[in-house]
Amino acid sequence: MKRNVLIIGAGGVAQVVAHKCAQNNDVLGDLHIASRTRAKCDAIIASVHEKGAMKQAGVFESHDLDAMDSAAVAAMIGKTGAQIVINVGSPFVNMTVLEACIQTGAAYIDTAIHEDPRKICETPPWYGNYEWKRRDACAAAGVTAILGAGFDPGMVNAFARFAVDEFMDDVTSIDIVDINAGNHGRYFSTNFDPEINFREFTGTVYSWQKGAWQENKMFEIGREWDLPVVGKQKAYMSGHDEVHSLAANYPQADIRFWMGFGDHYINVFTVLQNLGLLSEQPVTTAEGLEVVPLKLVKAVLPDPSSLAPDYTGKTCIGDLVKGTKNGEEVEVFVYNIADHKDAYTEVGSQGISYTAGVPPVAMAMLIADGTYDLGRMVNVEELDPKPLFTLLDRIGLPTRVQDAAGDRAWDQA
Amino acid sequence: MKRNVLIIGAGGVAQVVAHKCAQNNDVLGDLHIASRTRAKCDAIIASVHEKGAMKQAGVFESHDLDAMDSAAVAAMIGKTGAQIVINVGSPFVNMTVLEACIQTGAAYIDTAIHEDPRKICETPPWYGNYEWKRRDACAAAGVTAILGAGFDPGMVNAFARFAVDEFMDDVTSIDIVDINAGNHGRYFSTNFDPEINFREFTGTVYSWQKGAWQENKMFEIGREWDLPVVGKQKAYMSGHDEVHSLAANYPQADIRFWMGFGDHYINVFTVLQNLGLLSEQPVTTAEGLEVVPLKLVKAVLPDPSSLAPDYTGKTCIGDLVKGTKNGEEVEVFVYNIADHKDAYTEVGSQGISYTAGVPPVAMAMLIADGTYDLGRMVNVEELDPKPLFTLLDRIGLPTRVQDAAGDRAWDQA
Repeated sequence: MKRNVLIIGAGGVAQVVAHKCAQNNDVLGDLHIASRTRAKCDAIIASVHEKGAMKQAGVFESHDLDAMDSAAVAAMIGKTGAQIVINVGSPFVNMTVLEACIQTGAAYIDTAIHEDPRKICETPPWYGNYEWKRRDACAAAGVTAILGAGFDPGMVNAFARFAVDEFMDDVTSIDIVDINAGNHGRYFSTNFDPEINFREFTGTVYSWQKGAWQENKMFEIGREWDLPVVGKQKAYMSGHDEVHSLAANYPQADIRFWMGFGDHYINVFTVLQNLGLLSEQPVTTAEGLEVVPLKLVKAVLPDPSSLAPDYTGKTCIGDLVKGTKNGEEVEVFVYNIADHKDAYTEVGSQGISYTAGVPPVAMAMLIADGTYDLGRMVNVEELDPKPLFTLLDRIGLPTRVQDAAGDRAWDQA
Repeated sequence: MKRNVLIIGAGGVAQVVAHKCAQNNDVLGDLHIASRTRAKCDAIIASVHEKGAMKQAGVFESHDLDAMDSAAVAAMIGKTGAQIVINVGSPFVNMTVLEACIQTGAAYIDTAIHEDPRKICETPPWYGNYEWKRRDACAAAGVTAILGAGFDPGMVNAFARFAVDEFMDDVTSIDIVDINAGNHGRYFSTNFDPEINFREFTGTVYSWQKGAWQENKMFEIGREWDLPVVGKQKAYMSGHDEVHSLAANYPQADIRFWMGFGDHYINVFTVLQNLGLLSEQPVTTAEGLEVVPLKLVKAVLPDPSSLAPDYTGKTCIGDLVKGTKNGEEVEVFVYNIADHKDAYTEVGSQGISYTAGVPPVAMAMLIADGTYDLGRMVNVEELDPKPLFTLLDRIGLPTRVQDAAGDRAWDQA
C-alpha cells in the first residue's frame, strides 16, 4: 500500500493527471504538483477546485521544481511524503526523476521515453539507451517503475498483451494504430508541444519486422484503415516508443506503429521540413541573429492547450494483433474510443491529453492498492492487463474488442 | 550629353547592370559601384573583368556607401564625377538617392517604387506617396529622373505606350503578364530577395478598373494565358508599381498586372502565410528571443543569386493591350522572351535579374546621348519607346509583337 502522489510537469497531460488524481484522492491520498513554473501548477489546482474534482477534502499543493536536478526531486519527495511519482514533465527529465525515486523508494511512472535534448530521433534500442540501464538498480532497491504508462505507449502495450494472452497461441504481428478524427478548427496545430511532436517525424522510421529493425522514411509507407466509429482513415508507419519494448517482449512478431495524418497536416509538415524550418540547428539571419527554426515555428503555432474548448470529434487508438489459435489464423482489434468534447467537459483538456493522462493515474491507483507495486521496473505489457482495463472502464477509458465474433466490451464473451 | 555612371547596390540586378555598363563603357564613361558591403561590389567588378566585359579600357571602381544618407550619396556623386546614377539598391533608399541627384544635378534611374521598411503594401497612389512629390523639384533643377525603369515596371510601360500609339485610337485595357517558365531545380526559392518578394503578395491586390481602384486578395483571381514560347500558363492578379503610373497616364483603360505562379509556389506561400511565418511583426519564442518570422524564412531559403548556374528555361513578359482602331476592336500583345541560361553565360545572372538589369542601362545610354535627358521626372510610358526598343534589340532584350496579323519583331510591318 502506497499513498500520496507527486505530479511532475504542468502541461496539458499534467492537467488531466491532476483532475483524475483529485477524483480519486480517497485512494491516492495527498496530492502535489511541481514544475519550473509554479504559476502553471496553481492554474491546474484552481481548475481542479473549479470543477469540484476532489473526491474528498484533502491536500493539493503546488511547488517550484527543477526536475533536471535529481537531488531537488529527491528532496521534494521527502518533503511531500509522496510514495508515488507521476512524471509527465518534458521527456528530458526522465532519468533525473527516476534516479530520485531509486534513492527515496518512491514508485515511478512516466508516459514517454527519455530524450536527450541535443539529439533527435535516436536509434533503437531507445529504452536500452537510458531507462533499462537502471533496471537492476530498481530491482535492488525494490522500486516499482512503470515505463511508458500513457496511452501510446501504455494502454496499447496492455492491448497487445491482452490480445496475445486471450486470443492466440502464437502472435505474428502487432500493428498499433493511432487515429485522431477530431477537429480543432485551426488552420494547423500540433496536439502537443510542437518541438516534441515534430521530433517524432523528422528522423528515420524504425519498425520491427522479420526479427530485425527496419528503416523507412516518414510518410513513405501509408495505409488506409477501416476502424470502429472513426471509419476509413489513412495512417503512416512512424517510429514510437512502444515498438521497442514490444519488440523485446514479442521478438517473434512484426511490430509496427501507424499514426493517422490528414493530407493537410502532411502538406504543412512537408513544406516546413523541406524549407528547413523544423531544424534544431540554429541559422543566422541577415541581421546576425541566431535562431533555431523549430523554436520559431513553435512560437507561431497555436498553444496546444488552447485548442481544447473548440475541439470536437473522437479518437480511436488500438492494436490489430494477428496470430494463430489451434493452428488457425486469428486476428483481433483491441481499442478505445475517446471524445474531445467529453474530455473538455470533464477535465478541461482535449482528447489527446485525456487519453495520455488517465492511464498513469490508473497505474498509480493500482500501485496504491498493491496490484502493480511489484518492486521492479516494467513496461506495461509485462503487467496483467485485466485490473487496468477494469479500472479504466470505470474512470473514463473503456476497452473494446472487435474480431470475427463482432464488436464488444473486452470482458464480454 | 552626360557621362560617368554610379551604380548603387550590389545584388543580383546590380550584377547585370555592372556587366551591361561595362559592355557599353565607350558610351557611358567611368563606372563606379557603391553599397554598404564593398566586398560585394568588388566581387561584381571581378566578374566583369573575368568575362572581359569592358568594351574599352576604363575606370570601374568600388565604394562603401550608406545610401540612406543623402549627403553621403551627394558626396559620392561629387567624388566620382558621375552624371548618371543607376539606383538598384534596396527600395528603401530611393528617396535619399533621388534627393542627392536633385542636389547635384545628376540624372536618376531606378527600377522599383520607394518603400518604407516599416510598412507593407501601402495603398495607392504609391508613386504619389513618395517620388512624385519631388516632380516639381526635379523640373526646377532640370534633373532627369526615370522612375521604374527595369522590366516590370519599365519595359512593360514602354510596351503599353507603343501598343496604344501604333495600333489604336483608344485604349480600353492593359493587362501586363509576367511569366517565369524557368526551373531552378530547388524545392522552393524566390527569384529575388524573399523579404521584398513576399511583401508584394501579402497585402491587398490593387488594380485599376472602370476608372477606380479595385481591391482583391492575392490568388483570388487567376487566369490561364496562352503565350508565345512559354505556352499555357496560370497567372494571378497582383499589385505592381506600374499599375499606378499607367492608371494615371491612361485613366480610361483598365490596368491589371498578372504574375505567373505554379501550384507548388502557391502552396508553399499559403502555408507560410497562414502559419504567420511571413509576418514582419516580431514574435517571442519560449526562450524569450524576439524574432521577425520573415527574416528567419529568408535565412533558410536559398540565396536567389545562387540559383543562376542551374537555372534553365525562359521568361515571357508582355502587355496585352486592347482598344479600338477606326471603330473596330483591336488587340495586340507586345512582349519579350528571355533565356535563363543565356543570361548566365553572358553576365553570370539568371533571367529575372537580367530582364530587370538591362533596361536601366539602356536608359542610361539614352540619357548619355541626350535622347532621354529631358531634365524632368518621368515614368517610362512618358518616353518615346522606339529608341529604347531599337537599343534593346541590340543589347539583349528584343521586343516582339503578336496580333491578328501574326508574330513579328516590333519594327516589322
